[in-house]
Amino acid sequence: MWNLPPSDSVLHFLSFVALAAQAMTAALAAGRRSMDWLGVCLLGCITALGGGTIRDLLLGHYPLVWVQNPFYLELTVMAAFVTILLARLVHRLYLAFLVLDAIGLVVFTMTGCDVAWQMDASLPIVIVSGMITGCAGGVLRDILCNDVPLLFRAELYASVSVVTGLFYATAFGLKLNAELWTILTFALGLSLRLLAIRYKWEMPKFVFTADER
Amino acid sequence: MWNLPPSDSVLHFLSFVALAAQAMTAALAAGRRSMDWLGVCLLGCITALGGGTIRDLLLGHYPLVWVQNPFYLELTVMAAFVTILLARLVHRLYLAFLVLDAIGLVVFTMTGCDVAWQMDASLPIVIVSGMITGCAGGVLRDILCNDVPLLFRAELYASVSVVTGLFYATAFGLKLNAELWTILTFALGLSLRLLAIRYKWEMPKFVFTADER
Amino acid sequence: MWNLPPSDSVLHFLSFVALAAQAMTAALAAGRRSMDWLGVCLLGCITALGGGTIRDLLLGHYPLVWVQNPFYLELTVMAAFVTILLARLVHRLYLAFLVLDAIGLVVFTMTGCDVAWQMDASLPIVIVSGMITGCAGGVLRDILCNDVPLLFRAELYASVSVVTGLFYATAFGLKLNAELWTILTFALGLSLRLLAIRYKWEMPKFVFTADER
Repeated sequence: MWNLPPSDSVLHFLSFVALAAQAMTAALAAGRRSMDWLGVCLLGCITALGGGTIRDLLLGHYPLVWVQNPFYLELTVMAAFVTILLARLVHRLYLAFLVLDAIGLVVFTMTGCDVAWQMDASLPIVIVSGMITGCAGGVLRDILCNDVPLLFRAELYASVSVVTGLFYATAFGLKLNAELWTILTFALGLSLRLLAIRYKWEMPKFVFTADER
Repeated sequence: MWNLPPSDSVLHFLSFVALAAQAMTAALAAGRRSMDWLGVCLLGCITALGGGTIRDLLLGHYPLVWVQNPFYLELTVMAAFVTILLARLVHRLYLAFLVLDAIGLVVFTMTGCDVAWQMDASLPIVIVSGMITGCAGGVLRDILCNDVPLLFRAELYASVSVVTGLFYATAFGLKLNAELWTILTFALGLSLRLLAIRYKWEMPKFVFTADER
Repeated sequence: MWNLPPSDSVLHFLSFVALAAQAMTAALAAGRRSMDWLGVCLLGCITALGGGTIRDLLLGHYPLVWVQNPFYLELTVMAAFVTILLARLVHRLYLAFLVLDAIGLVVFTMTGCDVAWQMDASLPIVIVSGMITGCAGGVLRDILCNDVPLLFRAELYASVSVVTGLFYATAFGLKLNAELWTILTFALGLSLRLLAIRYKWEMPKFVFTADER
């Protein structure tokens, strides 16, 4: 996420909203495990900023955005902290947060593609970069909560990110009007994720039951 | 930790002692999970050196200190290995290790702040750098042992690191006498942590029981 | 792994075979946890490429090989995906995969040593670099599957990597015929690992039962 060209101010704004939303849902997960206040804030930060951080580490893209601009850090800490005070409300706004989380998935994926693209990465790396930016934060959250990452088992999530990235990246090749393509990609990704939630679309599962020898 | 200016030789010495102490308590944790000897040594290294390593990765601060100076690695491997031989003794010296671990928390935090400061980071990043250096090793240990990180649930630990970093960092701004301020910060951080253990001070917990939907 | 001098074409070929084999056994592990297809592919990639990635992050060795050459990524994704289709067959070829995994351990260790050596690292770092390249992928797999890493508890694995690295690295010092030494190291490492599996050689375990206080 992050590092959008300044013109994309709508995407930029949406990415801040989505960062806050991801920090808030992570804070609820922390509350379910009775973490202390500082733990709640840390888990919020790590979940919201972790995807972009892992991407930047893998691409050697220094300095990290939240190191250069600590506002990202402050925003997510604040969002997690507010969740402690307003937990019931956040919980009741469950549906709104599902949508915000879906927006985050799509926006982060697009900005992850942008970052890799600006570093002249090849197409598979552009798509992987988008997927990592969109999904890795949730994986870190699940590892820290000691769960098997949900990513690998629930409704279409990482796959939405892959499709979004693929669709978005073809625009680079086709040299289409950038703004139009951005809007189209956003609409496609968001619809796909919301439909997946609504109709419980899942990837086929690979179930293998033979014992380890 | 690491990278103190050569004048701070007392802090430097304390940081070696604390590295060894953290490797030894991690080795006991490995023993509770019946790991083999190499696993014990690895867990000791990762716990003791992991905080500084994660900080250096996030800040892009290469080469890592233990890569440049393998003595750090050798020290922690030795400490973990000695623990296998002297497990009963280490266990009996439980209280001494609590104090050494607290010293490590404070010293690592201060040196983490130093590193970020030397890279011209902003105040929030200086404090986060101190906290990561002080606390992240223990989080790695808990993940590798398949626990929910203790950091997020026990007596004041990360919060001691934050307060220590905040207090220490204000000296940078105030341009006070560096040595005096170092001593004051050390005393404050250590007292705070020991008092927290003694009187079981905890951060308020965020307990949220509504089901996931 | 990766980054072999072009002359070592046999090792190079073996490393591709081993990458595919590690992705395939990781895919079976994913199937045991009923992950979805994308999760299977991701776990395969992370397991096969994770060791080299962590090594490169720690050494600051950019760009990562799979970023520069996405064929590595495509190969492991394909291997994991094929496993979904041929799970029964892969399972039945259990013994072949044990051997391929052992080949991977040895080959990855040697190439990890090469990378560190080319960066003028000291002997301990060369050996650690080999061990991380050989073993860290499996640790990541176990963390993502929410297990205590097997590395720390089963038959000689990391220790085979350490011995292989030590033996291989002494050649650098002795300036022996490089090809002969490569073959000798490969034979030694592979035999050691296969004997360890056959006769269930294990490192002594450190079992410590006193309660945490």
